[in-house]
Amino acid sequence: MNPALKSSLRRVMAQFEPYLTEVTAWPQWPSTLAEAARYSLFSGGKRVRPSLALLSAEAMGAELSTALPWAAAVELVHTYSLIHDDLPSMDDDDERRGRPTCHKRFDEATAILAGDALLTESFALISRSAPSAAFAQDWTRLLAEASGGRGMVGGQVEDIDGVESLEALLSMQQKKTGALIRASVVGGGVSAGVDLESLARLERYGEALGTLFQLTDDLIDADQDAERDGNSFLHHMSKEEVLEERGRYAERAISAISPLGPQVSPLIHFVDYITHREK
Amino acid sequence: MNPALKSSLRRVMAQFEPYLTEVTAWPQWPSTLAEAARYSLFSGGKRVRPSLALLSAEAMGAELSTALPWAAAVELVHTYSLIHDDLPSMDDDDERRGRPTCHKRFDEATAILAGDALLTESFALISRSAPSAAFAQDWTRLLAEASGGRGMVGGQVEDIDGVESLEALLSMQQKKTGALIRASVVGGGVSAGVDLESLARLERYGEALGTLFQLTDDLIDADQDAERDGNSFLHHMSKEEVLEERGRYAERAISAISPLGPQVSPLIHFVDYITHREK
Repeated sequence: MNPALKSSLRRVMAQFEPYLTEVTAWPQWPSTLAEAARYSLFSGGKRVRPSLALLSAEAMGAELSTALPWAAAVELVHTYSLIHDDLPSMDDDDERRGRPTCHKRFDEATAILAGDALLTESFALISRSAPSAAFAQDWTRLLAEASGGRGMVGGQVEDIDGVESLEALLSMQQKKTGALIRASVVGGGVSAGVDLESLARLERYGEALGTLFQLTDDLIDADQDAERDGNSFLHHMSKEEVLEERGRYAERAISAISPLGPQVSPLIHFVDYITHREK
Repeated sequence: MNPALKSSLRRVMAQFEPYLTEVTAWPQWPSTLAEAARYSLFSGGKRVRPSLALLSAEAMGAELSTALPWAAAVELVHTYSLIHDDLPSMDDDDERRGRPTCHKRFDEATAILAGDALLTESFALISRSAPSAAFAQDWTRLLAEASGGRGMVGGQVEDIDGVESLEALLSMQQKKTGALIRASVVGGGVSAGVDLESLARLERYGEALGTLFQLTDDLIDADQDAERDGNSFLHHMSKEEVLEERGRYAERAISAISPLGPQVSPLIHFVDYITHREK
């Protein structure tokens, strides 16, 4: 990883992790529910979405503290989506990040309810902690539209149904994974109160980065000899074509935000980080 | 039902139902997902929560149209909670309101995702349709806190775990059923921009009404010879005691809002309606 990015990430995560711990104490929740939600929230995830939210906020001139509620909210939503995706009636996964999944460690009802509570809490957190009502409204709308039926949940439905064409796969992935990644970046820009043109640039960056993320995921899975069904890019393209395609998305992401000036360099290095991550 | 209340309900529902139909077209959702969500949303429910939201808004002087997004949002959240509660790992119910439950009519994954999408959409709807950012923030917070880990979801966890004392049962029911009923009333008052003292009165009314609702539910279930486990008031009290207790909650609800003036009379008649409903 680029050393400047590494140091930026270390710095923003040094603020994010204690904040996340603080806002997830949940003393008024039933203890098992809070425990199950935290079990999945603190399980060694890479914090890609909150990192993007905070780097984007900082690059556009916001104080990090302004963007912390947003960064935490997207991580809560991401975590809920993993818990529900792992359920027996969905992907039926017993392990995630080398540990039992939430419904294996607890039980199915608790996992469903922990996901529900995390999703709900993301909106409570935004409405409680946003620096103004306008921020609260913008963030709520951005998060709800990215993660609902026309975004992440819709993508999960399409994933389960299975896709047959490359075009349908791209559209499914842009909803299932891309929408929340894009929203993370855009919500960071919102914290800085940037103009609409800059927001549109962040949006194009986030959208390209989301697809790039998924292309890399499929390459990693291919190296691990995973099944290549219609929901993998490798079912529709050769490995070389996927690598070329990924290069094009990287260029697209970079060229979208380069005009915003040198302060976006952490976001530009992030493209490289996402491209070359190994898991 | 009191004729004046009947005519008020007919009038507000004549605005609510077309509005709900309009905001649940969801053209950008996968069609099965939208179909499953609407299947549960339009299944002959009594619309208790949106009725309360709209009657409360109107009683406090708001235009009905101002409160429609709030009324729809609480009904979306209520519907999601029923879908998830019916799942095999929770109450494992095959029928609701004389029709197959969502996971029986569709499948379990679709039911979980339809619930997730309804919950998410309630916040999208509020943020998109609130008359101002301040309304959006207040409603989001009210809804998220009533329906999350310290509210409805927390109550569902306690319901599954089972409660042993009357005190624990009351607390569980105030979370599981009461919190959203209370929030529905309070959110109506928010639409009218009422002062804090009036909000506190609406809150006490809503809280008492929520408990009264559950006491009646348990009496109805008892008449149907349902099991009387620790989660029923009839496990802890005789039928006569439950009836007396219900009378006290009815008085409490009425005396909380009577000082607000004659315009709250539909809310006062609503207490009678909830008390004497038969299913």
